[in-house]
Amino acid sequence: MDGAPRTIDWVERNGRGAVELIDQRRLPEELVVRRIDDVDELVDAIVTLAVRGAPAIGVAGAFGVVLAGSDDHAVERVRTARPTAVNLAAMVDRVAARRGDGADAVLAEALAVRDGEIAASWAMGRRGAALALELTGERPIRIMTICNTGALAAVERGTALAVAFELADQGRLGSVTALETRPLLQGARLTCWELAQAGIAHRLVVDSAAAGLLARGDVDLVLTGADRIACNGDVANKVGTLGLALAAADASVPFVVVAPETSVDESTPSGDAIEIEERSGREVTDLAPAPPGTSVANPAFDVTPRRLIRAIVTDHRVW
Amino acid sequence: MDGAPRTIDWVERNGRGAVELIDQRRLPEELVVRRIDDVDELVDAIVTLAVRGAPAIGVAGAFGVVLAGSDDHAVERVRTARPTAVNLAAMVDRVAARRGDGADAVLAEALAVRDGEIAASWAMGRRGAALALELTGERPIRIMTICNTGALAAVERGTALAVAFELADQGRLGSVTALETRPLLQGARLTCWELAQAGIAHRLVVDSAAAGLLARGDVDLVLTGADRIACNGDVANKVGTLGLALAAADASVPFVVVAPETSVDESTPSGDAIEIEERSGREVTDLAPAPPGTSVANPAFDVTPRRLIRAIVTDHRVW
Repeated sequence: MDGAPRTIDWVERNGRGAVELIDQRRLPEELVVRRIDDVDELVDAIVTLAVRGAPAIGVAGAFGVVLAGSDDHAVERVRTARPTAVNLAAMVDRVAARRGDGADAVLAEALAVRDGEIAASWAMGRRGAALALELTGERPIRIMTICNTGALAAVERGTALAVAFELADQGRLGSVTALETRPLLQGARLTCWELAQAGIAHRLVVDSAAAGLLARGDVDLVLTGADRIACNGDVANKVGTLGLALAAADASVPFVVVAPETSVDESTPSGDAIEIEERSGREVTDLAPAPPGTSVANPAFDVTPRRLIRAIVTDHRVW
Repeated sequence: MDGAPRTIDWVERNGRGAVELIDQRRLPEELVVRRIDDVDELVDAIVTLAVRGAPAIGVAGAFGVVLAGSDDHAVERVRTARPTAVNLAAMVDRVAARRGDGADAVLAEALAVRDGEIAASWAMGRRGAALALELTGERPIRIMTICNTGALAAVERGTALAVAFELADQGRLGSVTALETRPLLQGARLTCWELAQAGIAHRLVVDSAAAGLLARGDVDLVLTGADRIACNGDVANKVGTLGLALAAADASVPFVVVAPETSVDESTPSGDAIEIEERSGREVTDLAPAPPGTSVANPAFDVTPRRLIRAIVTDHRVW
């Protein structure tokens, strides 16, 4: 967004470079940019979701290799900080492959990763907006989305929400219904914040309200991001995406995934092969006051089979 | 539950009768029984969900007519305290029809409503357990459920959760997966509390995790209650029930509704005719820290079409 800092960037100050990123745990209460110059802090930022979203943690991984220098163990720790989004490991590998060429080459590659994600976000927005208009026809489009897929999930602009921004720029956006996205409420905290900053009409609902709103015709198009796309078109994304896709299919509302080509994993044949991160149950019980000692399952993602997906939009293609 | 107070009851103390009910807003932190002897307080308890669950608010409505005495306006306020569950209006009407016969007849009718709901709960548990065993075969049954449908939703035992209690008594229950049930978290706060009290193995998940867990084969049977059942078999229940039914259907897991015959509304031809209560957006934003001023939609219920429901179990029949 104009005037706002990038979600994550490499910034030189007094001749020294470091990662600077918006601490997303502090939003929407306050916009805090953290400067990070060692790997431990960067891994902590990724694990605790100070930075999150598949494209953004891909860029974080790229910069992590710069911070790691010659320390192989540090590179590996960055690479494995979170398991589901393919971007993290893929971008770490891409930048780490340049380590033989010296520190300048490593930094240049990491900056190229960043620039590539920025270009991809703008391309996805344009391509997705064209598809959205094709799928839904004339009236202002009412979008439903889960989690946060805006600028905060990338470097600028975003993935699925980039389509909403593009439609808004074209005067073709009706409104956005944001699912709050339990357990960590990225929809409520981050998506509503971005939409408010952009002056886009929106409303917040609990995740479980999605099916009823779709059934009663409140929504023209469902847009989500992806953490990993298997070769066959199955998509791993934020937990709740599968249920949203089922509800959209039942209501005959197009369900479209928007993600950079870097989220397509050629080594994953289908959704069954994607590791689903299981996170701490405390993320659930911090807000839901169950009796002490209650057992919790907290899968961070689920897999949506390709049969439920109308199209996958990347920066390169409509699939 | 043995030794625990009933969810709601009419209790004579020093020669004066009044409603006593468990204040469900205080659970699971503390078990507080409130004594209520005027209509204003009772309506407040219904509106603020100190007492909730279709059978329980039906009984609350019955006792409300006793408290209202000859005040027609007070009867009407009880009757319309909440719109979606048919039990409230139906039980108010049933007891109010006896007002011409004097106060003793009114109280006797209200007590009959209470006793009828207790008998219905035990009958639903037995009938539902038999159906569950028929649908799922030999192994201990792993149940998923939304909201709270246990003793706290009725007077004793409950509706859908009564089936789990019955299966547990028969040694045929594997475990229960409780959806937390945003926005007010009745699953986390009330269902987990009841299951812990009963010593039943269970785990808590966010609502949006349901589809993924069903898809990966974690669940043998989905059981829910109902706030109103239309003549054609469409069911209005806690928001999220429709999404759960869609996910169960997609995973080929039987989806069974358990509700007393008193929740069947002969005057409602189909789900389209059911009024869906829209509650305050603050119920959502109290926990989800969206930016100040964020617009919220907060439908308390949704409608599940009968095509997604394997069976409706009442105290009288399997439908």
